[in-house]
Amino acid sequence: MAQIAIIGAGIIGRSWAIVCARAGLSVRLVARRKEAAESCLTAIAEAADRALPIAPDCSVSMVMERISVSTDLADSVAKAGFVIEAIGEDLSEKQKLFTALDHLVPHDAVVSSSTSSFGVSRFASELTTRSRCIVAHPAAPPHLIPVTEIVPAPFTSLETVEVTFELMKAIGQVPVLVRKEQPGFVLNRLQGALLIEMMRTVSEGVMDAEDVDRLIADGFGLRWPFLGPFAGIDCNAPGGISDYLKRYGFMFEDLARERGMETPVVTQAVVAELHDAMRSVVSLADLPDRIAARDRRMAALRALRKDFGPF
Amino acid sequence: MAQIAIIGAGIIGRSWAIVCARAGLSVRLVARRKEAAESCLTAIAEAADRALPIAPDCSVSMVMERISVSTDLADSVAKAGFVIEAIGEDLSEKQKLFTALDHLVPHDAVVSSSTSSFGVSRFASELTTRSRCIVAHPAAPPHLIPVTEIVPAPFTSLETVEVTFELMKAIGQVPVLVRKEQPGFVLNRLQGALLIEMMRTVSEGVMDAEDVDRLIADGFGLRWPFLGPFAGIDCNAPGGISDYLKRYGFMFEDLARERGMETPVVTQAVVAELHDAMRSVVSLADLPDRIAARDRRMAALRALRKDFGPF
Repeated sequence: MAQIAIIGAGIIGRSWAIVCARAGLSVRLVARRKEAAESCLTAIAEAADRALPIAPDCSVSMVMERISVSTDLADSVAKAGFVIEAIGEDLSEKQKLFTALDHLVPHDAVVSSSTSSFGVSRFASELTTRSRCIVAHPAAPPHLIPVTEIVPAPFTSLETVEVTFELMKAIGQVPVLVRKEQPGFVLNRLQGALLIEMMRTVSEGVMDAEDVDRLIADGFGLRWPFLGPFAGIDCNAPGGISDYLKRYGFMFEDLARERGMETPVVTQAVVAELHDAMRSVVSLADLPDRIAARDRRMAALRALRKDFGPF
Repeated sequence: MAQIAIIGAGIIGRSWAIVCARAGLSVRLVARRKEAAESCLTAIAEAADRALPIAPDCSVSMVMERISVSTDLADSVAKAGFVIEAIGEDLSEKQKLFTALDHLVPHDAVVSSSTSSFGVSRFASELTTRSRCIVAHPAAPPHLIPVTEIVPAPFTSLETVEVTFELMKAIGQVPVLVRKEQPGFVLNRLQGALLIEMMRTVSEGVMDAEDVDRLIADGFGLRWPFLGPFAGIDCNAPGGISDYLKRYGFMFEDLARERGMETPVVTQAVVAELHDAMRSVVSLADLPDRIAARDRRMAALRALRKDFGPF
């Protein structure tokens, strides 16, 4: 893989630099101001040190020697095989930057944006390089949280999607395809749906804010790093997720109706799709083994939390 | 503390038995059928073994010698200081059981229900012991997930609430007060809000089911066992949660509006309450230290997941 150019030396840009460098890639990080270019290396070294358990064979000095910082955009992207834009969340700034990049990047480079809210259609549709433009939206910060939403525009080429998936896998991220350029993509909508119900709970005086947080941190938050919410409920009924939704789906319908959302939510079609997805991963006969595996992991996580002590 | 009587030898009853026994309490577990009484001890020993890292000083044999199983309800609760009902989620069965217990429990015993959907008002309002009846709804299974929703009815005494909180803390659970007997209490509504948006995402063809799960398991699920969602976003803007909501609150409003929910969600009142709650835990000056502490924990969790290997 050719060089990675990361534009923006803020939290996300610095974090991307760690992700790429610890995977062995050569990184050129572009800062807007000279002072930022100087100070960001210290911040990167500190963050890389804290993240060492993720890639223990790659020392902080190995990470650092693969990263160089510059304020020269044209020079930094001239030999880049893959560009990661990580500037602030400002649409006109992104438009300006992508327009500049249109003339600066090699003819086969992919140009990705870390935007969390704008589809690439909003700032790259007029460019000659648009088929190589794509959103690769990380959870923050990506050197700790691997999932990355890959959101092509209608004009993005299939090859660009494939190259982006390959790069993300090569650097240890978990790319997932978003098929529609909707606001918040999917990740922030999921978090948003949860936070909306949490805020309502506080607004309505049903529970104190800190306790609402505990429901996740000392509740299902202990399960979710191992099994996502679908896989989690799949383990909570003898017949798996379709059985669970048959028993408890009414709760979701009731909640959706109470909150004014469109119903039905738990349609036959979605139950069938979830059943197929879960059963392709684990058969019903193997569910008890999966539950035992889950239990061991959760017990280890509780021990880990105890070792670290309270925040 | 006097003896604990747990009624129901299913997954939840067996799990409660482990929680109480590993905290040093004497447990009488009541099974409905003789066969269940015989088989449940094996299941308890296996589950306790898998959970050993949570309380490594309490061996499986120490847990087991504190648990006895019986099919005699009257005898089992006769000397109980605290009763935990953990039978199936059937309202008329709960009504029958609580009516029977009304005449069987000591005059100062607290009788708690593990129900996940019915307020105790629905099955204990006519009882002479009703001031000592309360819901203590665990996340499943409680021996792995400590948070427990404590839901008093209007007729539940303050002393009953206090005794329940004290017991839960003594056995290592994390009790949280639910001030309203609403369907799903709070925990299942939070999970429900998330699952509704997840199912919609699948129904609308925006993302495959397994990828939606990955957004949590390889995404914010790595943060939430350490920081709940409120505390999580509190770390993601320089000025804490109120700054975050000033910057990104529009995303929640847009999502709520799009899904047909009532708006505004992010009211000045809720922002003020969340600000106060977060700032009572950590000052803005200490946020960078908190972020560093979060990072170390997340890196350790990723190493733990890697050690266990894929599911």
